[in-house]
Amino acid sequence: MDMTKLETLGERARAAKYSLAALKEEQKNQALCRAADALMDNREFLLRENEKDLQAGQKNGMRPGLLDRLALDEKRIAAMAEGLRQIASLPDPVGEVLETFSRPNGLVINKLRVPIGVIGIIYEARPNVTADAFGLCFKTGNAVILKGGSDALCSNAAIETVLRQTLEDCRITPDAIALIRNCDRSTTAAFMRLNEYVDLLIPRGGAGLIRAVVENATVPVIETGTGNCHIFVDESADIDMAVRIILNAKTQRVSVCNACESLVIHTKVRDRLLPALAAALKEKQVQIRADERVREVIDGCLAATEEDYAAEYLDYIISMKTVDSLEEAIAHINRYSTGHSEAILTGSQENAERFLQEVDSACVYVNASTRFTDGFEFGFGAEIGISTQKLHARGPMGLKELTSYKYTIRGNGQVRG
Amino acid sequence: MDMTKLETLGERARAAKYSLAALKEEQKNQALCRAADALMDNREFLLRENEKDLQAGQKNGMRPGLLDRLALDEKRIAAMAEGLRQIASLPDPVGEVLETFSRPNGLVINKLRVPIGVIGIIYEARPNVTADAFGLCFKTGNAVILKGGSDALCSNAAIETVLRQTLEDCRITPDAIALIRNCDRSTTAAFMRLNEYVDLLIPRGGAGLIRAVVENATVPVIETGTGNCHIFVDESADIDMAVRIILNAKTQRVSVCNACESLVIHTKVRDRLLPALAAALKEKQVQIRADERVREVIDGCLAATEEDYAAEYLDYIISMKTVDSLEEAIAHINRYSTGHSEAILTGSQENAERFLQEVDSACVYVNASTRFTDGFEFGFGAEIGISTQKLHARGPMGLKELTSYKYTIRGNGQVRG
Repeated sequence: MDMTKLETLGERARAAKYSLAALKEEQKNQALCRAADALMDNREFLLRENEKDLQAGQKNGMRPGLLDRLALDEKRIAAMAEGLRQIASLPDPVGEVLETFSRPNGLVINKLRVPIGVIGIIYEARPNVTADAFGLCFKTGNAVILKGGSDALCSNAAIETVLRQTLEDCRITPDAIALIRNCDRSTTAAFMRLNEYVDLLIPRGGAGLIRAVVENATVPVIETGTGNCHIFVDESADIDMAVRIILNAKTQRVSVCNACESLVIHTKVRDRLLPALAAALKEKQVQIRADERVREVIDGCLAATEEDYAAEYLDYIISMKTVDSLEEAIAHINRYSTGHSEAILTGSQENAERFLQEVDSACVYVNASTRFTDGFEFGFGAEIGISTQKLHARGPMGLKELTSYKYTIRGNGQVRG
Repeated sequence: MDMTKLETLGERARAAKYSLAALKEEQKNQALCRAADALMDNREFLLRENEKDLQAGQKNGMRPGLLDRLALDEKRIAAMAEGLRQIASLPDPVGEVLETFSRPNGLVINKLRVPIGVIGIIYEARPNVTADAFGLCFKTGNAVILKGGSDALCSNAAIETVLRQTLEDCRITPDAIALIRNCDRSTTAAFMRLNEYVDLLIPRGGAGLIRAVVENATVPVIETGTGNCHIFVDESADIDMAVRIILNAKTQRVSVCNACESLVIHTKVRDRLLPALAAALKEKQVQIRADERVREVIDGCLAATEEDYAAEYLDYIISMKTVDSLEEAIAHINRYSTGHSEAILTGSQENAERFLQEVDSACVYVNASTRFTDGFEFGFGAEIGISTQKLHARGPMGLKELTSYKYTIRGNGQVRG
């Protein structure tokens, strides 16, 4: 482990954060647009470096799905560039006055939105995250230190080089972005404990990566993205709407955290819902794992286990559980949910309100698909992830969620009595 | 280590949080006032149990300062009761609608303030924290699990018993409060990793306690209370005001986190400031540890080391450092500060604004004492601690800072395209 190197990156990022916090919005937007241009201008370089990663990946027997996520092409580079331009077009949250109040002693207190400082991102072999995380952190005046998957090192280093050069061209400190090039485990472990320099760690990736960061980090972490999302079909649900929403939430894109993994069904709606739903799911080749009361009416589905109710499948699989009441549905969901997104499908206003109140998740829906839990769908214009913890940010995190605040207090000689 | 017991406490707290989140403001206020009465009614019991802790403490050679913090008397019990009544009188932040917005697809999104859930507090042998932390967490709809210092176990258990009984009398779940009675290290370590049940850990105590929690916890932590607070005396400072503010910030109460520990002095103000300041500090028996340029004009002060500039003395000691410019002052402060509270004393509006912008601390002052960083002084009416981190809350934490938010989304059949 090259600890000296890591400390150097940390020190540089910490030094950079002061000047980044003072950048004007236009400066940041110009730099983001120039960075977008630079990615396009350097696409041959980026594709060449990406090819090295792809060849190594193929040699190492990387799975096709992962190779696909690693691969860059002209279209994906254009999408990265477009992402930076889009971030440039969003309002800058830094400097916003959140509150102003005066005290009887004459002190005037302002609560101001400020950057967090230095943000660390730990992610898997997806080069697009490199540009995206930089864009979001830079727009909010934060320095970012990136630790990407080792399989994408050449691609990430190429993107970092282009971005750092652009910043220099704009006379902005290139230390706004740093990529950790040493990919051994001990460097990653040390990065998670770099409290002296790093203010926040955001892991982006699968449940295993996120668990490893939560287990090992001493730097504050925002947990993102694990979603065992439930839909509860209440007694009074509209059956056509229910089939349409469940199908969308389960199958529109199975690999994402806001996809529905588990269905909770009121016994009184079972016989009306399940025939139509089972046919629709069968058409999409969704495997059903269910309790006995569901299996009484759907042929050929597997018995659900405890593990099924807790699972985030990210696949064409759904678990089903019947309940006798709204209370039982809420208790089941609060027990197995990861606190991401849950929905009730109901015709009852009263049951809807109770579900919204009592289900303890970041996003709770009435009569809509859980797939809307997303920074873009919420109108934030961008997203760094979906927080499933209670601290700092919950649900979709856009630009505002990458800021902190400070108090400024103006006096004229006040002392405490 | 009685892990089963800890898990049981966790499970009960998690079960309690759902009903606590649904309590009405009047119910909570009534229970808080009845708890205040119950503390007063049971003061003989509380004093008797406290006496056991005090006798054990004396036998174990506990230092007089710590014994004093441990001791209860009628006045201190009355103060605890009064604290609960004061919390009852504050507005309940839970349920506040923070934002409402509609999307083009017709979804109506509300961002609501909700309790965090289960909050863990780790603190030293100060029984008053037991009632205080309960009051703040209960008012905000959170369940609290307390791990107090082992030296205060009898006192804490007595307070917990009275509070739980009151809750039962009010037909509210007594699991709103739980005290961990097993004080061995492995139980504390397990408590810090109880992610399944605990949403947030707040350590309240000295730097050593806070460091231990940050190092070992996997539950999200809010770091509180370490304050190496600086005052910078600029070239144009009013000397009389400067002496008055520095004296207040250093000596009004030396043992608190918002006391001034380090003075940064513009060389051009040195000769006008130091004679008067040194005389005033000498009168209060404050020891000065300073750089060479200070020692040229003040006799008999010690040379400051690197450790001095980084120290939170919590004592009648102050470090002093001269600088040639505002930039140098800001760089010194950002290097050594713990991010708590810093002040500039200046006649220059321009320098004041630059200091406010560039000093990266929770509370940054112009011409006022750092001693005002406090939930009560800020008008929050209560305080659980002063956060020195960037995540979730920064500076004084009142009731709002003990809440999170959730999104509720109401639709009429929307699916994602």
